[in-house]
Amino acid sequence: MDRAVLLLVCPDAPGILADVATWVAQSGGSIVDAAQTSDIDHGLFIQRVEFDHTEDVEELRRSFRDLAVRWSMWWELQVPKEKARLSILVTKEAHCLYDLLGRCASGDLPAFVVSVISNRSDLEEAAGRFGVPFHHLPVDADDPDARLAQENEVNAVLEADQPDLVILARYMRVLTPQFTERWSERTINIHHSFLPAFIGANAYRQAWERGVKLIGATAHYVTSGLDEGPIITQDVARVAPGDTPVTMARRGRDLESLVLSTAVRAHLEHRVIAYSGRTVVFD
Amino acid sequence: MDRAVLLLVCPDAPGILADVATWVAQSGGSIVDAAQTSDIDHGLFIQRVEFDHTEDVEELRRSFRDLAVRWSMWWELQVPKEKARLSILVTKEAHCLYDLLGRCASGDLPAFVVSVISNRSDLEEAAGRFGVPFHHLPVDADDPDARLAQENEVNAVLEADQPDLVILARYMRVLTPQFTERWSERTINIHHSFLPAFIGANAYRQAWERGVKLIGATAHYVTSGLDEGPIITQDVARVAPGDTPVTMARRGRDLESLVLSTAVRAHLEHRVIAYSGRTVVFD
Amino acid sequence: MDRAVLLLVCPDAPGILADVATWVAQSGGSIVDAAQTSDIDHGLFIQRVEFDHTEDVEELRRSFRDLAVRWSMWWELQVPKEKARLSILVTKEAHCLYDLLGRCASGDLPAFVVSVISNRSDLEEAAGRFGVPFHHLPVDADDPDARLAQENEVNAVLEADQPDLVILARYMRVLTPQFTERWSERTINIHHSFLPAFIGANAYRQAWERGVKLIGATAHYVTSGLDEGPIITQDVARVAPGDTPVTMARRGRDLESLVLSTAVRAHLEHRVIAYSGRTVVFD
Amino acid sequence: MDRAVLLLVCPDAPGILADVATWVAQSGGSIVDAAQTSDIDHGLFIQRVEFDHTEDVEELRRSFRDLAVRWSMWWELQVPKEKARLSILVTKEAHCLYDLLGRCASGDLPAFVVSVISNRSDLEEAAGRFGVPFHHLPVDADDPDARLAQENEVNAVLEADQPDLVILARYMRVLTPQFTERWSERTINIHHSFLPAFIGANAYRQAWERGVKLIGATAHYVTSGLDEGPIITQDVARVAPGDTPVTMARRGRDLESLVLSTAVRAHLEHRVIAYSGRTVVFD
Repeated sequence: MDRAVLLLVCPDAPGILADVATWVAQSGGSIVDAAQTSDIDHGLFIQRVEFDHTEDVEELRRSFRDLAVRWSMWWELQVPKEKARLSILVTKEAHCLYDLLGRCASGDLPAFVVSVISNRSDLEEAAGRFGVPFHHLPVDADDPDARLAQENEVNAVLEADQPDLVILARYMRVLTPQFTERWSERTINIHHSFLPAFIGANAYRQAWERGVKLIGATAHYVTSGLDEGPIITQDVARVAPGDTPVTMARRGRDLESLVLSTAVRAHLEHRVIAYSGRTVVFD
Repeated sequence: MDRAVLLLVCPDAPGILADVATWVAQSGGSIVDAAQTSDIDHGLFIQRVEFDHTEDVEELRRSFRDLAVRWSMWWELQVPKEKARLSILVTKEAHCLYDLLGRCASGDLPAFVVSVISNRSDLEEAAGRFGVPFHHLPVDADDPDARLAQENEVNAVLEADQPDLVILARYMRVLTPQFTERWSERTINIHHSFLPAFIGANAYRQAWERGVKLIGATAHYVTSGLDEGPIITQDVARVAPGDTPVTMARRGRDLESLVLSTAVRAHLEHRVIAYSGRTVVFD
Repeated sequence: MDRAVLLLVCPDAPGILADVATWVAQSGGSIVDAAQTSDIDHGLFIQRVEFDHTEDVEELRRSFRDLAVRWSMWWELQVPKEKARLSILVTKEAHCLYDLLGRCASGDLPAFVVSVISNRSDLEEAAGRFGVPFHHLPVDADDPDARLAQENEVNAVLEADQPDLVILARYMRVLTPQFTERWSERTINIHHSFLPAFIGANAYRQAWERGVKLIGATAHYVTSGLDEGPIITQDVARVAPGDTPVTMARRGRDLESLVLSTAVRAHLEHRVIAYSGRTVVFD
Repeated sequence: MDRAVLLLVCPDAPGILADVATWVAQSGGSIVDAAQTSDIDHGLFIQRVEFDHTEDVEELRRSFRDLAVRWSMWWELQVPKEKARLSILVTKEAHCLYDLLGRCASGDLPAFVVSVISNRSDLEEAAGRFGVPFHHLPVDADDPDARLAQENEVNAVLEADQPDLVILARYMRVLTPQFTERWSERTINIHHSFLPAFIGANAYRQAWERGVKLIGATAHYVTSGLDEGPIITQDVARVAPGDTPVTMARRGRDLESLVLSTAVRAHLEHRVIAYSGRTVVFD
């Protein structure tokens, strides 16, 4: 039996769930996990169906098309990869990178890292420990032409590696809209705050100055707006009296690693549906 | 349109979801919320379907019967009450009682309290503030006959009031199997620990002595085994250095109130399916 | 023995802790709980000392003055009240009000409610259940003069009642700087978001539109800037797929009640030190 | 300036805090962080003082002795190591090992790993990636003599490596009292449940069968009683409907890694005081 994941969004109406489930059954499929919800504000039905089948996938896609047209669906039929390809962009902070490399090596994430790309050389050793090619692509942040040239080099590595997912694991350069569009819906960033609070750099200092009692981390798809893409995962941790921006950053590292890997797993398992600047993430 | 909730458990097999969803559609129903899961260990399919309809409920039940037999289902078709009837048993701690009375009065819980029953008189004033009849049924805990007699009086109040749900809100008397059986599947208890840790009395002292770093609370259906019924809701809170059994109990009260009211709401909204000593609670 | 709480903030330097602890010992005091921290950014030492003593409090204050001058301290010596006086401002949402009334009645909070003030009449019954005077002071929100007049009436009630703490328990009118200044450092507001995200009205709708995965609540001292006062307590809860602004508000109510009562307790126990737009809250 | 950490436990009495703080000031020390609490049940005062000084450490110890005798203190004066030595025992699960290796390599933990010891060979590659010696010491679990012999070999590696801390990172063999006594107060184990619930093997299956709604992890010092040593850190995570023992174990891995590394950090920073089978952990 093969595994497939159907994701769909369409205007809500009675009968869709019955139609989809009947289609799976008639295709000889056996549902492993199905979950659906609705967005009452936009009047949408949103569903994820994971099922086992013996059919050819293209045949399944063809056979689903009629039903999709009837209900005006946006839809995808995905085949989960045994091991997805990840490219990771970093600057100098090591915690998310080590966390992802370790999770791939131990089999915790169904993926392997095909490239680590950085504007600095600090993390070359980390990539090397896991036998992952490290691309050092330095850039003068004050020179717009240099930034564009470097981004083109980053892009060239990605084009060569064809990752299923690009991960910004504390990459401290802002990307152009051209880049984010090219890799849209498969680039995840980890931001070190509970978005939309504390956008941009120095989020822990901003948080400390406002005197918040919890710090957060947010993993989101990257769009052209800074820290504005659809949120996939968020979590928070308690601030202790006496915490400084430095100790908050220390506590925050654990949050960042965990929130990022949770979002990566959800994406790789095709549990995330992004629409209208939001996501639905099925457990 | 009327609202109904279908709950079902049956051996898992391809086609059930399609059959159920098709039945709803063919009955002229419109699904408001559907969720399903499986218990892989026992090979079970477990579903909750909330739907709007114009049919007579008995007619719906009749029409579902064939399908239920075909898939060997345990099932219920519930009609959510606008206001359910609650009877609350207490001893002397007021926090859960005030919390439930306030939630019913403010409309936060879709229920009203028909009786408060206690082996002590401490909480008579609390019930009185909300105009709820208070039944003081004292008992000598050391006299088995007296205990049985008092339990019969409790039972008589319940039989007269016919509550949809009986709540043990820090009621400190152990009930007989006859009683728990009579009110089974509609009696919820709040226990002041993360069960199965710290069964029985003095749970905070037990927790303090073991030196745990989190305290918990557990709401569960009452069965004949002490603190062994199916768990509905649990939550925990951090223990601070310097906490004593007394301060842990103080922190624990907030947990107890919240966990209990969350379980009560889930029950009243027909979101809980209990089977094999466990529950599935749909969000 | 009497109980006192010393709160202090001063420039950090070696020897302060020794001096303060020695002063307590020499005053015949016995420390019940002491906690201190530092704000490294501002170079400050911040301390709370709770102690038992047999001395006259004014005498204690006099004897501490020299030490306070020597270290350039801001300081207070508080005597915890057995029962503090609370005035609660509300509009129409009942959950925080019932929660506070219940906690005062059960003895969970060391306080009693002396007045409930509202621009609407919805919650008159709630106050009445607990025998608390209810002041209905309606206002035409579009008429600046009427708003000022109503605020003066609110102020008159407070001046008459002399509460130790004013609580804005979902009071939906913006207060003038004159008012907030008059009651500064003893007015706590509950805001229905994780501040500084989602300032102002409709916080749950804002949160839903941004697609956050956690909702929050924030209790803070009221200052003239909208939702900008020093944060005392914050907490968050998970958003489920399918949540709408309405269901998020439902989940949020539990957060609001709990966060507010936690902040009120911390304030009444003199555990909060506010300085530079921030607070330190000792456990 | 050098850094030192003073830990102490003694019968509670007025004047101790003053004496200790005065001693630090008179020794020319500057307090960086001080925290104290009391165990009211046992009548104990418990304190941690971190301070900078220019004195010789042995001289400090000598000068503290009088004070310690006066108040009948158990006490230690520790000098935090820039990099502590860790030996890690594992069996086959990789997540905690990779997490610890990554944290040491990135500088997140102030430590380096001197040896990885295992009864299986599965994790040799993981140790190798970080250049850490791997000791494969297989054992026939059914042969008591073989178990003793293998434990002696483990012990020999440790005696040679002289670690500051021994970490049982999912090591699946029970150790003898001789071993636990030899390395007592410097051996930390991670247990995959919220202790004292679900002691021993198969904790996730036990948890699943009981139907708990949260899973936990517990890091504790190892003593001769199985899973009974003083608890250092605990945390929990939500169980989703549909979780199985396998998916609970998957979620649990994140908890285990985080709880273990948090306990290791607290130990290395001398923030843990163990006494009477319990610990106090200062933030």
